[in-house]
Amino acid sequence: MQRVDFPAPAQWPALQQRPAQAEAAEVEQRVRAIFDDVRQRGDAALRHYAATFDGATLTELRVSAAELAAAAAAVPADLQAAIRQARQNIERFHSAQREAELRLETMPGVECWRRPVPVQRVGLYIPGGTAPLFSTLLMLGVPARLAGCPDIVLCTPPGKDGSVNPVILFTAALLGIDTVIKAGGAQAIAALTGGTESVPAVDKIFGPGNRYVTAAKQLAAQRGVAIDMPAGPSEVLVIADASANPVFVAADLLSQAEHGPDSQVVLLSDSAPVLDAVTAEVQRQLADLPRRDVAAQALRESRAILLASAAEMLQFSNQYAPEHLILATDNAEELAAGVTSAGSVFLGHLTPEAAGDYASGTNHTLPTNGYARNYSGVSLDSFVKKITFQRITPAGLRALGPVVETMAEAEGLRAHARAVTLRLESIGN
Amino acid sequence: MQRVDFPAPAQWPALQQRPAQAEAAEVEQRVRAIFDDVRQRGDAALRHYAATFDGATLTELRVSAAELAAAAAAVPADLQAAIRQARQNIERFHSAQREAELRLETMPGVECWRRPVPVQRVGLYIPGGTAPLFSTLLMLGVPARLAGCPDIVLCTPPGKDGSVNPVILFTAALLGIDTVIKAGGAQAIAALTGGTESVPAVDKIFGPGNRYVTAAKQLAAQRGVAIDMPAGPSEVLVIADASANPVFVAADLLSQAEHGPDSQVVLLSDSAPVLDAVTAEVQRQLADLPRRDVAAQALRESRAILLASAAEMLQFSNQYAPEHLILATDNAEELAAGVTSAGSVFLGHLTPEAAGDYASGTNHTLPTNGYARNYSGVSLDSFVKKITFQRITPAGLRALGPVVETMAEAEGLRAHARAVTLRLESIGN
Repeated sequence: MQRVDFPAPAQWPALQQRPAQAEAAEVEQRVRAIFDDVRQRGDAALRHYAATFDGATLTELRVSAAELAAAAAAVPADLQAAIRQARQNIERFHSAQREAELRLETMPGVECWRRPVPVQRVGLYIPGGTAPLFSTLLMLGVPARLAGCPDIVLCTPPGKDGSVNPVILFTAALLGIDTVIKAGGAQAIAALTGGTESVPAVDKIFGPGNRYVTAAKQLAAQRGVAIDMPAGPSEVLVIADASANPVFVAADLLSQAEHGPDSQVVLLSDSAPVLDAVTAEVQRQLADLPRRDVAAQALRESRAILLASAAEMLQFSNQYAPEHLILATDNAEELAAGVTSAGSVFLGHLTPEAAGDYASGTNHTLPTNGYARNYSGVSLDSFVKKITFQRITPAGLRALGPVVETMAEAEGLRAHARAVTLRLESIGN
Repeated sequence: MQRVDFPAPAQWPALQQRPAQAEAAEVEQRVRAIFDDVRQRGDAALRHYAATFDGATLTELRVSAAELAAAAAAVPADLQAAIRQARQNIERFHSAQREAELRLETMPGVECWRRPVPVQRVGLYIPGGTAPLFSTLLMLGVPARLAGCPDIVLCTPPGKDGSVNPVILFTAALLGIDTVIKAGGAQAIAALTGGTESVPAVDKIFGPGNRYVTAAKQLAAQRGVAIDMPAGPSEVLVIADASANPVFVAADLLSQAEHGPDSQVVLLSDSAPVLDAVTAEVQRQLADLPRRDVAAQALRESRAILLASAAEMLQFSNQYAPEHLILATDNAEELAAGVTSAGSVFLGHLTPEAAGDYASGTNHTLPTNGYARNYSGVSLDSFVKKITFQRITPAGLRALGPVVETMAEAEGLRAHARAVTLRLESIGN
């Protein structure tokens, strides 16, 4: 980790910078070609890419009911139980986010209301590769089901043998998601955007992925499909004061660093001994990690910064706007009250980010890359539109009508005024 | 209007198509040049564009306290009263959207909560031109204030004499918005994105505008600033059954058509006589409108469609996903229950869209161009991020920890598991 002691506030923006992303022009061009191909050839294109990129020969793209039903047998009982517990916690936290219809009279006879209505068709993308991200399927599938989205399509790449990881299938079956498509990468996003014979087009696409998937989601967004949020590498900022346990803090930094070589890790402390101890402990714990090469690469770009006070640490963090913020301090509740920009916040010494990544109940799909300044993480809201309604009675129109007429005339919109005037004339006084 | 009788469902998608937008490449290039210029020259660039595009010679870009205070004197008393009433209604409807902090234990000892935190710095763009859109300032400024956004920056173009429309200034002063910048077009969006000497950079930009402003907002979004929603021409779909009053329906269609030549107007009916009567009435009412040329142009591209039943009309509307939906029927409440995609819905014969455009209390910044499938209109939520928090006790960690360990190991993320294991070891059983 790069150590910086007492940087002047003028230096902060440079320290808060995320590394520039690789040039995207070539990626974008390849993704556009894939979109064109999927639009023209549909399922045939998906089969072609499954063969090329996943090494899988597929006849049926859709996972069969038999495959879904068989998955549980391949998932160890303790993992099944863990997934069920995580699902229950996520469901509890997200059900509490349900909003009732809001209905009121803003003036007598002017009734306005707002009703949450599920996004009708949602696509969930779950990457394959080294780790089967069944936890992300929980984080997206649980709120999608709670919101009542009628059509949920899950895309995930097949293995070389044409099968989908059984833990993914077990989780899908647990959530009652039965449209599971064997398609990965940009081609899956293209299929969800435009539809194919086997894949229904959707209104909104959720889920993480590599830079091809990210570029494909951006292209989908240009073509009228909504996406969950802009993507970027995962990141954590830890505020550790003299009360922090360096062993725990090091473990948290490493659990972020192991995600990928571009993971962002920032450590702030107002205690030089804690900074020293954490840095040493990171090296010690790194040694026997299976993913130590990945973590070591991420740590080279990471920063350990000594600041003067809790207030400075909080200010730095709010400017950085981390995806995950860990408050490894005795007075974490007090600090938390001052957080203005972060995706999700972990308070105290016994609350590792890993808890929220998997099972505490909060969502782990969160804004990265500074977007916590202006975006929220995924929640029940992400699967819902809030439609407003209004109904006006004769008495309401008599009271409100003249207000509308006056304002419309002042904006030079005569037909707006007349839509009111004609009605007022018809109902009389 | 183009009349289509009983189109087969296979024809619907073509009838639901919005007209293609003009080629944007040249607009985008000019907007990029303006962004570069504003980044390099700051206020000097804004002064340059005010001279070039608005014909205004400016020394101070920021509206002075004296100018703000003087505005009321230039606004007629009835308009002031109308604006105050509209503000009160909008405030009532949007305050009811306030969410309390949500806090619960998902398991004993695992406390999770969610707190709405205002976006810290928001930019509101209000176009100038033929109509001073003070109504849009109400629709954006009221929720921004209610959300508690600490920094609100309003940009609006100056007139040739270097002044800002007094109704805009009166409304800003009424809302307590005192950072008002004389800048319009893409240059205003560029200034809000990167900041200049006089204009603070913001986290999120709201507001309508021409295609330069739209392209500038898209560019801002690529540079890390959030925007309210994708933009498109305004639109209305009216469902009118045999109970509809053709005079009212025609007035509503025209109040949409007068917005601009690219406004979208769609009329659905299951009554041929009503379709005939509305079409005739539109021609009659069009004749003496000040903006009749604009409205006539919009109407040429508009459609009057005869369908077989209320169910068909509703299905067509949900597929079209209109920004504004008027249910000109006696059973409007019943129909409204089946609406799955629309920005804002107006029920019954006495509820003109104009009411919601100005003063009933609902927001008029709504998704167009089919985005009502996957976006909500502006609401209090648009000015708020929802940050999640969690805190775990020793008992909570003993219960949740093993779940996290099992899931992390199954995803191949050892450091995640260890962040839990090390803590569990330290607290013992």
